[in-house]
Amino acid sequence: MRPSRRAPDELRAVTLERGVVKYAEGSCLVRFGDTHVLVTASLEERLPPWLKGQGRGWVTAEYGMLPRATLERTRREASTGKQNGRTVEIQRLIGRSLRATVDLEALGERQITVDCDVLQADGGTRTASITGAWVALADCLNWMAARNMIKGKVLRDNVAAISCGIYNGTPVLDLDYAEDSEAETDANFVMTGDGRIIEVQGTAEKTPFTQDEFLALMALARKGVGRLVELQKIAVA
Amino acid sequence: MRPSRRAPDELRAVTLERGVVKYAEGSCLVRFGDTHVLVTASLEERLPPWLKGQGRGWVTAEYGMLPRATLERTRREASTGKQNGRTVEIQRLIGRSLRATVDLEALGERQITVDCDVLQADGGTRTASITGAWVALADCLNWMAARNMIKGKVLRDNVAAISCGIYNGTPVLDLDYAEDSEAETDANFVMTGDGRIIEVQGTAEKTPFTQDEFLALMALARKGVGRLVELQKIAVA
Amino acid sequence: MRPSRRAPDELRAVTLERGVVKYAEGSCLVRFGDTHVLVTASLEERLPPWLKGQGRGWVTAEYGMLPRATLERTRREASTGKQNGRTVEIQRLIGRSLRATVDLEALGERQITVDCDVLQADGGTRTASITGAWVALADCLNWMAARNMIKGKVLRDNVAAISCGIYNGTPVLDLDYAEDSEAETDANFVMTGDGRIIEVQGTAEKTPFTQDEFLALMALARKGVGRLVELQKIAVA
Amino acid sequence: MRPSRRAPDELRAVTLERGVVKYAEGSCLVRFGDTHVLVTASLEERLPPWLKGQGRGWVTAEYGMLPRATLERTRREASTGKQNGRTVEIQRLIGRSLRATVDLEALGERQITVDCDVLQADGGTRTASITGAWVALADCLNWMAARNMIKGKVLRDNVAAISCGIYNGTPVLDLDYAEDSEAETDANFVMTGDGRIIEVQGTAEKTPFTQDEFLALMALARKGVGRLVELQKIAVA
Amino acid sequence: MRPSRRAPDELRAVTLERGVVKYAEGSCLVRFGDTHVLVTASLEERLPPWLKGQGRGWVTAEYGMLPRATLERTRREASTGKQNGRTVEIQRLIGRSLRATVDLEALGERQITVDCDVLQADGGTRTASITGAWVALADCLNWMAARNMIKGKVLRDNVAAISCGIYNGTPVLDLDYAEDSEAETDANFVMTGDGRIIEVQGTAEKTPFTQDEFLALMALARKGVGRLVELQKIAVA
Amino acid sequence: MRPSRRAPDELRAVTLERGVVKYAEGSCLVRFGDTHVLVTASLEERLPPWLKGQGRGWVTAEYGMLPRATLERTRREASTGKQNGRTVEIQRLIGRSLRATVDLEALGERQITVDCDVLQADGGTRTASITGAWVALADCLNWMAARNMIKGKVLRDNVAAISCGIYNGTPVLDLDYAEDSEAETDANFVMTGDGRIIEVQGTAEKTPFTQDEFLALMALARKGVGRLVELQKIAVA
Repeated sequence: MRPSRRAPDELRAVTLERGVVKYAEGSCLVRFGDTHVLVTASLEERLPPWLKGQGRGWVTAEYGMLPRATLERTRREASTGKQNGRTVEIQRLIGRSLRATVDLEALGERQITVDCDVLQADGGTRTASITGAWVALADCLNWMAARNMIKGKVLRDNVAAISCGIYNGTPVLDLDYAEDSEAETDANFVMTGDGRIIEVQGTAEKTPFTQDEFLALMALARKGVGRLVELQKIAVA
Repeated sequence: MRPSRRAPDELRAVTLERGVVKYAEGSCLVRFGDTHVLVTASLEERLPPWLKGQGRGWVTAEYGMLPRATLERTRREASTGKQNGRTVEIQRLIGRSLRATVDLEALGERQITVDCDVLQADGGTRTASITGAWVALADCLNWMAARNMIKGKVLRDNVAAISCGIYNGTPVLDLDYAEDSEAETDANFVMTGDGRIIEVQGTAEKTPFTQDEFLALMALARKGVGRLVELQKIAVA
Repeated sequence: MRPSRRAPDELRAVTLERGVVKYAEGSCLVRFGDTHVLVTASLEERLPPWLKGQGRGWVTAEYGMLPRATLERTRREASTGKQNGRTVEIQRLIGRSLRATVDLEALGERQITVDCDVLQADGGTRTASITGAWVALADCLNWMAARNMIKGKVLRDNVAAISCGIYNGTPVLDLDYAEDSEAETDANFVMTGDGRIIEVQGTAEKTPFTQDEFLALMALARKGVGRLVELQKIAVA
Repeated sequence: MRPSRRAPDELRAVTLERGVVKYAEGSCLVRFGDTHVLVTASLEERLPPWLKGQGRGWVTAEYGMLPRATLERTRREASTGKQNGRTVEIQRLIGRSLRATVDLEALGERQITVDCDVLQADGGTRTASITGAWVALADCLNWMAARNMIKGKVLRDNVAAISCGIYNGTPVLDLDYAEDSEAETDANFVMTGDGRIIEVQGTAEKTPFTQDEFLALMALARKGVGRLVELQKIAVA
Repeated sequence: MRPSRRAPDELRAVTLERGVVKYAEGSCLVRFGDTHVLVTASLEERLPPWLKGQGRGWVTAEYGMLPRATLERTRREASTGKQNGRTVEIQRLIGRSLRATVDLEALGERQITVDCDVLQADGGTRTASITGAWVALADCLNWMAARNMIKGKVLRDNVAAISCGIYNGTPVLDLDYAEDSEAETDANFVMTGDGRIIEVQGTAEKTPFTQDEFLALMALARKGVGRLVELQKIAVA
Repeated sequence: MRPSRRAPDELRAVTLERGVVKYAEGSCLVRFGDTHVLVTASLEERLPPWLKGQGRGWVTAEYGMLPRATLERTRREASTGKQNGRTVEIQRLIGRSLRATVDLEALGERQITVDCDVLQADGGTRTASITGAWVALADCLNWMAARNMIKGKVLRDNVAAISCGIYNGTPVLDLDYAEDSEAETDANFVMTGDGRIIEVQGTAEKTPFTQDEFLALMALARKGVGRLVELQKIAVA
């Protein structure tokens, strides 16, 4: 029995609320149960120096948590003077995940920065961030298309992400914090709308896992991402 | 005529929404029109080293803006590696304002950290922060009182803040961004429920102002703070 | 009775010594009693990036304290790796105060950096800094005028600053450290030669103050600034 | 045809040279072809603060590259003032991988720090680091056992790692730099001696991959890790 | 002919003014011609962690330059966020030089920090700093002796320093900035009152020098330090 | 008797192994007994900003130690966020030493960066670094000459360095760690192939030394450098 009484293959309640911030070209408040992330997509007519003059654009991401998004207050990274290792890992993952379905040539020489700020954290902040980021990015691209800044299909497919893990010996979908802190194995899957894999990260801090266990997690993830992609499609429709 | 068509002594629509975050001992989402600040009050059983063993507690504040809270995206302070001068000024102001009505001895040897994170900025983020911070702080103290951690009246009075300025030659209350960027003079007033002054900051980047002009701003502020204190009392009732 | 036996409206002995450093275009060693600040004004033919090409110049300030300017040695900010919040606040205040009477268009596309370094601190370092900074700035502008780099009146008025506070229930002028550490209320006033206000900062860490108390402080400040402006005029004559 | 003319399932020449540094309790110079990493394991009788008094030890890792380990010189991280995101990701991965087979209770309240410094980089530095780190760690534990500091089996199994990728449409084992920079997909597998998975990271910056492709990579990895574990066993014999 | 018309073995006008700062236990304003350094010696009842409980004290130094001590303004190190390499080298040299004649056991478990802040720089700031630092240190130790905090002879000898160089082919004493920037060779000598050497640093950025040239510089230095030690003895008499 | 049983004027076993890294234009693994330093010379077609357009090139150096190069592990500088004072001093010394025999005009507008990374430290890391750096630099210049990038004699002479010290009252050559930590005096000499001096640094942390003692050290150094230059000539032949 999961602490939340969910079935093993059951997502938390997921909502994707668009247009939540006045200034951003795209934005989405994504909720996976009690995990709430505010995502904005900001268009800028500039590029990182190493990309200039190549006829391509760039999509990048930054991630942060409000200090009291967590059970205990964590120190503000702006005050400690640097982003910690976990933050760096997550924002690199979000950026890679989004770029995998964007046609950077079609975007043109511009940068879209996706900011994912966790207002409340109950496990799965990185997967919620990616899932919401795709919505904010899609809105930003629609904003650009409406102004004739881009032509054709810049976004090739949906991108969504979900975590899975082995909790009390059972593979379960979409871990919340209570499960995550107890799970033997934790894996994050980023997948496209057509079921292909963009990124897989499986970690066993406690006990190494077998290939069969991993395949069970991947099957759950495929199901969960399928549902998330449906919700994305409804949200941007 | 103000850009927002408000009367010179008219506040923006102000809302104070409590309990918006699951984990914090106190929290408040404060809105002054399109300026939205998420405030949390976090209780910690620790003190800054210089305060240990003196039988007193401490209240401090941190301030931040989400990168796309503003018209143009601003760089994330966690990524630049330091809080800029404006951030430092504001969080020190919020901390001093709150401490002025807290009985630190009655609080006991504990620290309350108030985090003010601006989700959307349209002028007046520091005054909205202070006004909402008082609500979050009050809730945190109520949380403590309900657990018999404190006795008696720790919070001696209300604290609220408002900006005033001279816009097109006319003293006006509660500047939004359109006014703030054009105002000749900008002043922030932090006051108590009984009308006394905790902090006054008046600045003339463009044209120095006279004592009479300053007194006109103070009169407006007194009126505005009076209204904010009423709203605080309704919120925590 | 004040610890220094001064009358409530009596300044400390103030001296403004010009030309104290060999290389700077303008310099002033300002003493408010035992508070000694070495100020230099440095002309540079460059501008902050955000100001380029707008036909205007810039005046900015930096502030520092020698480690043993104080009763106890404080850590060197160059060694801790950052300027603390108080330093940042003060140098921003000095910069704003000076800019309020400089015609930045008439200055041309150049920057003047005013460095205020406290050799000895006995309260009122920021007000002494501003008062001396005006002298160094005036000398720098005279140096430029003598070389036909500027024409007409770049400096529109004098700027001086003084602190006031309520000490043992009495409003007093120009707090020294012994008074400052005991005062209920502390306010700094930056004013022009014609009596208008550039910046007001009043703070009540202990007890909120009334409007009447604030007006009493402002009246003292006006008197003190008047005397400082006289001394500035004698110094640069 | 691979640039190195290797068969798809062929490792580069791998050597594991022990005892290469005079002072460290364990050390290993690991070579995967032209990728050379110097690994040391350092025993310290101290723990991170959050782990004190829990009867458990800790194993952590740090990773670095000499500035000219690469084709073009890269900036020295000690000089830029921080470790970049890639460095942080890799050292966290190495640490997690090692901890997965260490019995931290049996280790006792001590820390072993594994430093992986890349002398020359030709792709696969993280997998070479993990494979060599296990040897250095084993030697450090043997050093401790010889001094009766630990009893029983602290190291539960071997740990080795290898990269796989899809290069020119074919799944290949142990990518070198020439392949890595062209591969559509890149995956790193960390596995135990008994064939279980500790960590999987698969990334598609260019084209998302299918589950079947991923399984083909995993099969290659299993084969490669098996060979690496044999070499580890020979090295420590 | 030297730019200053001094004889090759002639020092600049040297003054050592004691007691220039109100709070410090020892202080000295040292002038070598137009090079002016304000030195303070601060006693603290604490030690660096690695020295605790060893029955010995410590003497350390910090060095800084005011931004406009130089012909062109240099950036404030507190603002750039770190001390540059030259600053670090100099403050380490000053500390080592002073420690060489202090009986650290006799000092007791305390630290004296000597701050050398250059108000105006015209070459030779490190040698002026050391020479003045000895005076400030001596005064600090006298202050302690007067309070019975130390007994006997803590300071075993005088320490003074001077630069020499080969300018236009001639060995000269006490280089000013005009000479320093043109000299082929630059050497700094730190010596005791009895003529022994504490530190020698000779550098040839342009042309390597011979042993005979070096000995000629050392002979000049011996003469110069002899004169500086006389001035120190007069100053503290 | 020296701990290593060497004669007072006897170097440790010195080897200079070239071409040890695949990518660098020049490289050398230098060993002075148990002190091992990996040196690379990297050519870059860029210059520091202050040197652009002057028709001259630049040679600079960076220095680092692997964390477990030492008896006890030292913290990684990339992780602490800055290079410590000793590192800064040493890399500045290496850079100056190399520049003293390079014809920077003949080098052309390019920069050569010499990285000296200590793999194992047993005293004398800075002198081994300089001695090996000359070999790596020579190889880099040969690489350039072979591609007609430079003409004529860019490297005017050899440069080598050795430490000397007074150990148990006797002047000895090439201190190892056991001697260095006990020596009364420690001096480093950087000299050219023709016996002239580039840099001398003599330090007496414990007891000041006499001129005669210093001359005895210099005589030893001359002998040691002569031998090192012979080895360099053999290495590059």
